[in-house]
Formats: sequence, structure tokens, C-alpha cells
Amino acid sequence: MEIKVAKKMLRANDEVAASNRRALGEAGVAAVNIVGSPGAGKTALVERTVLALKGRMTIGVIEGDIATARDAERVAAAGAQVVQLSTGGACHLDAGMVAQGMEEFDLAKLDLLLIENVGNLVCTAHFDLGEGRKVLVVSTPEGDDKPAKYPAIFMRSNALVINKLDLAEAAGCDVSRIRREALELNPELDVFEVSCRTGKGLDGWLNWLTEPAAAKS
Amino acid sequence: MEIKVAKKMLRANDEVAASNRRALGEAGVAAVNIVGSPGAGKTALVERTVLALKGRMTIGVIEGDIATARDAERVAAAGAQVVQLSTGGACHLDAGMVAQGMEEFDLAKLDLLLIENVGNLVCTAHFDLGEGRKVLVVSTPEGDDKPAKYPAIFMRSNALVINKLDLAEAAGCDVSRIRREALELNPELDVFEVSCRTGKGLDGWLNWLTEPAAAKS
Repeated sequence: MEIKVAKKMLRANDEVAASNRRALGEAGVAAVNIVGSPGAGKTALVERTVLALKGRMTIGVIEGDIATARDAERVAAAGAQVVQLSTGGACHLDAGMVAQGMEEFDLAKLDLLLIENVGNLVCTAHFDLGEGRKVLVVSTPEGDDKPAKYPAIFMRSNALVINKLDLAEAAGCDVSRIRREALELNPELDVFEVSCRTGKGLDGWLNWLTEPAAAKS
Repeated sequence: MEIKVAKKMLRANDEVAASNRRALGEAGVAAVNIVGSPGAGKTALVERTVLALKGRMTIGVIEGDIATARDAERVAAAGAQVVQLSTGGACHLDAGMVAQGMEEFDLAKLDLLLIENVGNLVCTAHFDLGEGRKVLVVSTPEGDDKPAKYPAIFMRSNALVINKLDLAEAAGCDVSRIRREALELNPELDVFEVSCRTGKGLDGWLNWLTEPAAAKS
């Protein structure tokens, strides 16, 4: 019974996701779904990206949070158009929430839509939002044993951003092990090692994000 | 419809949790449900606790993981009796899984049961496992803005262990802000600042865990 309902919910989500994807494609907006644990640095990556691409691209941001508008305020301060979605306790964004968020933008005027999901390494793997690409942010202090322990989200992402490179040594994290285990699960994954605090490694990420393929949402 | 099913599932869970709680109480086992984000240091806290209490208490550990037996192997190496529960993708332990895990122990011979939940700051808040007390582990590199953003789990925990104190300065984390915001949400919370790596601050945690009240599971 529960499984049947869960499948029905996922199917309904997929239909709305397909409609989001169509609308984004028609408007020529590249959309990226950014997932990761609480504190991995998703908001810091969005801030850095918005600042770096200012003047080059028009960026909209959807901030998904269980509570508070803290992340939205940070991203707005960086200069993006931001829509705050409060999930009211829910552990992930779904396509319907994103459809509501999309209504707040004039899509014809956007180049890029960054969707920051709720901090959750598990549930966010299972809900298509209609994005073009999914980006997983992990941070070195979380440890280097995470890919095999949380495989679904590594398998379903297009890029992996390994953040807080500046803390790797102090945290005793072997970054090459994260990279190796993640690529074993998903050989197609594009991997970037960055520090959103120092700015190190962000060029590769920005190139990936803005490459022509990204426009085919 | 979905809400009705979810409520029914939670009610069924609560019934099994009550039965777990009864069995633990009758056997005089203090049970603790340990929750937190991936990489917060839940397993490190269990390892430290098992090593510190060796010879003083007989400890059983239930390790909840989506995949792999990595945490169970670490904890077994520290000297505890360990049961591995693989959730097969599920984002939290529920009372039924814990009931299955409990069958693997001779409860009459245990003093303490540590249940390490799946790494998830959201979903684990909503499932009673039949534990006596719930302990939330957060780590300083996750940032100092988390309590208000993930309020449910702070409100439903009995103790908060702020781990990775040794990384706080490098991570730019204001530990006093975590403490303040957490206590605003839940003034009853017992808060411990520790480093599972260096061992700093663990005495207070161990006293809390082993105080007579803990036996009243």
C-alpha cells in the first residue's frame, strides 16, 4: 500500500518535472539542481557563482529551505534574483514546488536557474525537479567514506563539487578517495575540487556550468 | 490521501516503538538514538564511547546505514557487539528495523544500546525508535546557522553534541551561536562541545550518558 502510493507520488512528480523541463527548454534557461548535506557549502557555491558570472549571465536562484530565509538573503546580497521556497518541514524539493518558484521569474530574461535543494544526502536523490543537470556538493570535513555509503545521489548526479579543500588536511580527508569512489559509482561524473572560501578551483566549475551544453536544459 | 497514509505509517511506527521501549525498560537497558548529518561524527562518537566505557558497561550498538558495513566494522573494532541494519535506500531507521536489530542481542546482558541512525538531519527527527533519549551530533564545519534552519531535530533531541571543536576556528564556526540558537529552540537540551579526534570535552558527554537517569529507558 505505502509503496503503491509512493510510486504514484513519484509518477505525479515526474509529470510536473517534465513540464518544468519543457518550459525551461523553450525559454533557453539552463537549470541546475544543487544537492548535498547540510553545511556542505551549497549556498557558498551559489554565492561564488553569482558573483563570478555577474554581468555575463542573468541568473535566477530558487532557495529551498525547511525554515528561515537565511540562504536567500545571502544569495540576494550577492546580486541574484532569488525566490525562497519554504518546504515547511519536507526533506526535499519536489517538481511542484519548483514550478511555483518558476512562476516568480520572467524565464525569457534568464540564462541560468540555480535551484538549491534542502540539505539532505538521501531524499533529494529521488525527485526530478525538471533540471538539466544535477550537481552534488560534498565537503572534505564530512569524511572521505561517503560515496559508497550514500550511493544513489552520487549515481544520479552529473557533477560532483568537492568543497572546503582548504580544510582537507586539518580534517584528515583523503580527497582522492572521494574522487575514486564516486567515479566507481558513476564514471560519467565531472569532478571539481574547490574551496568556496579561498576561491581555489572555481574556474573549472564555472566553465562546466557555462559551457554550451548547459543551455540544453 | 498521501497525508493519511503517512499518518498511518507513523502511528504503526509508534506502536512498535512503544513495544521496543517496553522491552528495553524491562531488561534495564538504556537506549540512545544518535542522529545527525552525514559526516557529523556519529560513528566517531560511538567509537570513543565504546572505548571509554569498556569494562564498565556492556554496550550493544545498532548501526543504521543505507549501504556498506563500514561503520559497523569501525565500531566492532572498538570492542562493541554490533548489529548492522541496511536500510536499502531508506533515509531513516524506523522502530520495526530496530526491533529486528534488538532480536540479535541478549538484552538481559546489556547495559546500554547505542543506535546510530542514517546520516540525515531531517527525516530522522520524525521516527521514534523506542529509545530513552535522542542525541543530535552536529559538527563545526557544517556551520553555525543550522539550528534555525533544521528546527525539528533540535526540538526533539535531549542532548546536542557539537563535535569537531578542533576544526571550529579553521572553519570559521562560532560555536556559541550554535549553542544559543539550539537552546532557543529547546531550552531543555543538554549541550556538549567535544572533539572526538582529540578527546576534548568527552567527559561531560560520558557522565550524561551513564548517569542513573539514563538507565530509565
